[in-house]
Amino acid sequence: MLVIGEKINASIKSVGQAISNKDQNFLANLAVAQADAGADYIDVNAGVGQDAREDASAIMKWVIDVVQNATDKPVCIDSDDPAVLEAALNKYRGEAVMINSVNAEPERLESVGRLAADRKASLIALVMKEEGIPRTVEERLNAAEIIIKHLTHLGVQEDKIYFDPLVLPISVDSTQALITIKTIEQIKSRYPSAKTAMGLSNISFGLPNRGMVNRSFMLMAASAGLDAAIMNPLDARIMSLVKVAAMLTDKDPRCKGYIRAHRKGLLID
Amino acid sequence: MLVIGEKINASIKSVGQAISNKDQNFLANLAVAQADAGADYIDVNAGVGQDAREDASAIMKWVIDVVQNATDKPVCIDSDDPAVLEAALNKYRGEAVMINSVNAEPERLESVGRLAADRKASLIALVMKEEGIPRTVEERLNAAEIIIKHLTHLGVQEDKIYFDPLVLPISVDSTQALITIKTIEQIKSRYPSAKTAMGLSNISFGLPNRGMVNRSFMLMAASAGLDAAIMNPLDARIMSLVKVAAMLTDKDPRCKGYIRAHRKGLLID
Repeated sequence: MLVIGEKINASIKSVGQAISNKDQNFLANLAVAQADAGADYIDVNAGVGQDAREDASAIMKWVIDVVQNATDKPVCIDSDDPAVLEAALNKYRGEAVMINSVNAEPERLESVGRLAADRKASLIALVMKEEGIPRTVEERLNAAEIIIKHLTHLGVQEDKIYFDPLVLPISVDSTQALITIKTIEQIKSRYPSAKTAMGLSNISFGLPNRGMVNRSFMLMAASAGLDAAIMNPLDARIMSLVKVAAMLTDKDPRCKGYIRAHRKGLLID
Repeated sequence: MLVIGEKINASIKSVGQAISNKDQNFLANLAVAQADAGADYIDVNAGVGQDAREDASAIMKWVIDVVQNATDKPVCIDSDDPAVLEAALNKYRGEAVMINSVNAEPERLESVGRLAADRKASLIALVMKEEGIPRTVEERLNAAEIIIKHLTHLGVQEDKIYFDPLVLPISVDSTQALITIKTIEQIKSRYPSAKTAMGLSNISFGLPNRGMVNRSFMLMAASAGLDAAIMNPLDARIMSLVKVAAMLTDKDPRCKGYIRAHRKGLLID
């Protein structure tokens, strides 16, 4: 499973402050720490530009530059705004790059899809339309169908599409974990070349012991075929379980990665 | 998921000694501790009768009696020998009872199946024939088909059959966890009333950090629909994850069981 490191996100207070204060070291260290901990992509969410003197694109470009100067790991550019995504894609020098995210809204599909096709970027696509997160598997699959048709028509390759099956809190609706799991299974079965990616922490919203719930959900999703998770790579316990998940889903032949991690003292139970 | 407490097993040295020494307190305490920790069934494996003065049936009957005097939790009678199973079933007073185990061998199916039908007992059925554990899903499903045909013909109800999908070590063959998972899914899909049950620890044979691997595998199997696990209920961490698994597989409406466990301080991360 690919690990998309979630820590460089302006909604985290210390990160938002570092961006406001142009604290390059703080952000560079956070990028390197995530890379060293095993992140495959570094998500970059630079917020929406609270300062009137600078627009969101300029801030995003600055953070992208800090990150690409700190690590060779590819970035995952995280913004709702196609203009910000475009600015960041132009600024970023790396070959591999991911966009986070698009959904089934035709206008956004068109503008962000074109960016992804031009740049040969991977693209996280939320399986929802304008109306918000659908509660059923069927509605999520309908959105997936709209997305894949539109994106492949624009020239995005199927294996560059990372469908986000969407996660609603289990505390609000006890069926939601299985709905996410079934959505992953169905997407993998209908579009064998396409990928799946999601954040984990929504599942445990409103519950105690959230880490335990998030880790359990990751293992269940991995078993269903999840390809990538947006998560905290600085959490050694979930990173250990990412290795277990790879081993148990036949992605770690002869358990080599698992045993190597054990020898390095990286398996934290 | 039903928890079948595995601790009263003569192959565990202290338990084997307690059985030899007729140490009633030791065994009664072990039964009560497992029941208090949340076991739904108490597995009873009394060994094979090492003492020439007593046969295996007499020893099993004695242990069953100790356990049923200590706790009201139903027992899961664990023996390869139909005569021992029959003696234990006659001795045991409880209404609910489970037999562990039968497989697809016609003779054993016939004799043990008759016992189960007469006693209306639940029955763990290993999806294998005489030749040993099949490596593929298809062969395991063939064995399941033989088993369910024979048992239902004898009058065993489908919902009393707990198919054991079988677990081979991931260190020997990296496909085996997914083979077990797919076997569970296929059995649940083909025989919607039938159940599934398995031991967990074989998966991690030969690896470091076995507990972490076993717990992860339990979560993946729960997601696939596993109904019962033969495991150590005195391990508070796996018992906590059993509660998480119930919550994430829509078996704990409004997260009540999970939150109750949290309030009692039972969730150990």
